[in-house]
Amino acid sequence: MKNFTSAKDIDDLPLLLDLAKEVKRNPFGYKKTGENKTIGLLFFNPSLRTRLSTQKAAHNLGMHCMVMNLNNEGWSIELEDGAIMNHTSQEHIKDAAGVVSQYCDILAIRTFASLQDRHADYSEKVLSRFMKYVTVPVVSLESATLHPLQSFADLITIEEKKVTAKPRVVLSWAPHPRALPQAVANSFVQWMKMADVELCITNPIGFDLSPEFAAGVPVIHEQDLALEGADFVYAKNWSSYENYGTIGTDHADWMITSEKMKRTPLAKFMHCLPVRRNVEIADEVLDSDASLILTQAQNRTFAAQAVLLNLLRNA
Amino acid sequence: MKNFTSAKDIDDLPLLLDLAKEVKRNPFGYKKTGENKTIGLLFFNPSLRTRLSTQKAAHNLGMHCMVMNLNNEGWSIELEDGAIMNHTSQEHIKDAAGVVSQYCDILAIRTFASLQDRHADYSEKVLSRFMKYVTVPVVSLESATLHPLQSFADLITIEEKKVTAKPRVVLSWAPHPRALPQAVANSFVQWMKMADVELCITNPIGFDLSPEFAAGVPVIHEQDLALEGADFVYAKNWSSYENYGTIGTDHADWMITSEKMKRTPLAKFMHCLPVRRNVEIADEVLDSDASLILTQAQNRTFAAQAVLLNLLRNA
Amino acid sequence: MKNFTSAKDIDDLPLLLDLAKEVKRNPFGYKKTGENKTIGLLFFNPSLRTRLSTQKAAHNLGMHCMVMNLNNEGWSIELEDGAIMNHTSQEHIKDAAGVVSQYCDILAIRTFASLQDRHADYSEKVLSRFMKYVTVPVVSLESATLHPLQSFADLITIEEKKVTAKPRVVLSWAPHPRALPQAVANSFVQWMKMADVELCITNPIGFDLSPEFAAGVPVIHEQDLALEGADFVYAKNWSSYENYGTIGTDHADWMITSEKMKRTPLAKFMHCLPVRRNVEIADEVLDSDASLILTQAQNRTFAAQAVLLNLLRNA
Repeated sequence: MKNFTSAKDIDDLPLLLDLAKEVKRNPFGYKKTGENKTIGLLFFNPSLRTRLSTQKAAHNLGMHCMVMNLNNEGWSIELEDGAIMNHTSQEHIKDAAGVVSQYCDILAIRTFASLQDRHADYSEKVLSRFMKYVTVPVVSLESATLHPLQSFADLITIEEKKVTAKPRVVLSWAPHPRALPQAVANSFVQWMKMADVELCITNPIGFDLSPEFAAGVPVIHEQDLALEGADFVYAKNWSSYENYGTIGTDHADWMITSEKMKRTPLAKFMHCLPVRRNVEIADEVLDSDASLILTQAQNRTFAAQAVLLNLLRNA
Repeated sequence: MKNFTSAKDIDDLPLLLDLAKEVKRNPFGYKKTGENKTIGLLFFNPSLRTRLSTQKAAHNLGMHCMVMNLNNEGWSIELEDGAIMNHTSQEHIKDAAGVVSQYCDILAIRTFASLQDRHADYSEKVLSRFMKYVTVPVVSLESATLHPLQSFADLITIEEKKVTAKPRVVLSWAPHPRALPQAVANSFVQWMKMADVELCITNPIGFDLSPEFAAGVPVIHEQDLALEGADFVYAKNWSSYENYGTIGTDHADWMITSEKMKRTPLAKFMHCLPVRRNVEIADEVLDSDASLILTQAQNRTFAAQAVLLNLLRNA
Repeated sequence: MKNFTSAKDIDDLPLLLDLAKEVKRNPFGYKKTGENKTIGLLFFNPSLRTRLSTQKAAHNLGMHCMVMNLNNEGWSIELEDGAIMNHTSQEHIKDAAGVVSQYCDILAIRTFASLQDRHADYSEKVLSRFMKYVTVPVVSLESATLHPLQSFADLITIEEKKVTAKPRVVLSWAPHPRALPQAVANSFVQWMKMADVELCITNPIGFDLSPEFAAGVPVIHEQDLALEGADFVYAKNWSSYENYGTIGTDHADWMITSEKMKRTPLAKFMHCLPVRRNVEIADEVLDSDASLILTQAQNRTFAAQAVLLNLLRNA
């Protein structure tokens, strides 16, 4: 593995999963591996879980970790090659990427979708330009279209909690007052396709995910029907891919409630957080025994730690 | 001790004081105790002394320390149970608290009083909700009504500098152009009541502290009279508790000056900082040999270190 | 060396250069020296290279590093002695400096020129007041008039890349849409005067640097002429010292291009970054084999590390 920005970067997923289980069992057993190694965490966007769990993972490995909020602690970044920089942007991503490569053995970056320009977002405009000029391995802390550290933690959680060999996993769209990226959903689908699960997606008409990620996965536009027989219900809002960036304001009835969960009474419930309580998901579901939200959050550390350990070993 | 959010959390104050003296003598003698332990410092509000001294204390103990500005680096927090989160708040404190507990062995949080709603502030609305959902020990970095790390450092300072067995300590209100919380004053009173000192408070009429903390402590509304015979003069502004959150604009003459300090020429002078020079206190007092302000700041490290060491040992 | 805020603070430049070469060869060879030592990095202004390279340098030496954005994480700072602080400033620099000295063995601070008041800037109003009240060694992370860590890295780079005993170094003014301080240019001149190089400066009329730094250095107002025979072309914008803080909007033709670099085809090109591409310097120059910009950035770590190591040894 050279970088970790997509499930496609992984050479051997079962091996990476085993590594995550091993570091969860023995978090401080690899402190020598990261000695004298530095990771830079670069944030263009807010973060709680990712910010803390990746720091924790790095520290567990004995790494030095430097965190930076690029937007307000550094200089405003120019993305366009050949730009005549006589306006507001202060530093070209080419230079920023080249410079941070001088100080870090691994670089991690968070950059959200604009939701204004689908082509720019789906070409991973920021991440790809950053990677073009970086000379060390790159880890995505969520990019415009994917959130692999979240999906890896989700997979670890499913592996830990599944009671059947090939569980049925339902990804359900949920309502939200603001336009959110499709990254978590795309990424979850990408990973589940590589896992030993039976995946289906349920969302309102107009909210189908990009075929780049969702092709081949059954989509059911009736939520109730989709939930039947699920072993894991993974709920998440995303704004429209089709009518790019629009919000599904007419679909408040897609909130996951206890009533809906009764259609599949043994199912576990998952959400990546942060969650809009009683809009996306009812309190009664999030706070039920079926809810795995804190386990997912916990596994973020070990997902990140396995990824960093793998990258350090390959360096 | 399970948490450290109030003097009431302390099992044995003399023992904690001894621990502070011991870590001050030998700051790096306990680096093994914090090995592989992580503390998260979560800030809703500005901080200089608390931010740096607590990091320093954690590092002295060999702990890993993660600092986060919750307001602008993470998500805006919802406090109300059962809220339908379709407005601006992005993550419920229940989830934020549950999540950060996954990454930290101790959590520390700073959250100031609103000064809008006395009941909410005095019920420690934010801190108490945070603590309800956290699964690890909590340290207050100043809350709506108390600032125990400051008071502990103040007590250490008084112990170091006192020349009589039972010093007379005067807490004096001082003028300030903005509305400040009562936290430092409440907390100082709470700690002094547990210490071997003779405490009195002096403040203008209308600025009596909450009976919850100040009951039983003599209040003198004439500052000159109160200062007579003081061994320690501790000055601090607070906005009104009685007429909640209002500023004492008519009391500029309560500024502590050299002239006033002449009423008790051997007294030491204390202030928690930051201080509005020549409004709360005259330069001549702050910069005099009697001033202990930097010693108080220095002792913040050892107060925090003793608290963390105690929590780590009890874990 | 007691502080590092100017080339004048250096006792023995060749020795400091040797130390930089040594730590570059063996970055982790001095991890014991910084054990139990804390450095505080205090930022009033944005920073990328300085922020990361100084953290890296401190960590390479085994130091504990605390980073703080003074403007938005702490309190707003009062600079005037004797001020009656009843307006917006919340803490006097006297107190802030005294307090941070309690927590750090070395303090580093970044404070840019205002470009409003030449006298204030050239008296280093902020830095000098900070230093007056600090009780530990101070490192400049760029001040109003100087940027010694940058210049030291520049000198290391010239030493590494020079092919003649006494290279000809040309500092060229370059266009920029905003008013920038003269700090990098002043500092570069100050260091080059101490190095074994032949220095000249080229800038438009009205943009001569302060005689305090540039006295004795030839200034050529025709850029083409100045570039002839250069071994190193160091380009940088600065706003006018003479007509203080004004921008050279009429001098777009001072941009460094390949065409201009043809006047001295073997010359290396240098810039401290961030750079306004295609305004200050054409892409073709920045991205050419002659460009040393990333080597300069890399050497920031070792410049800082040599400085910190020297300060720790002298402590």
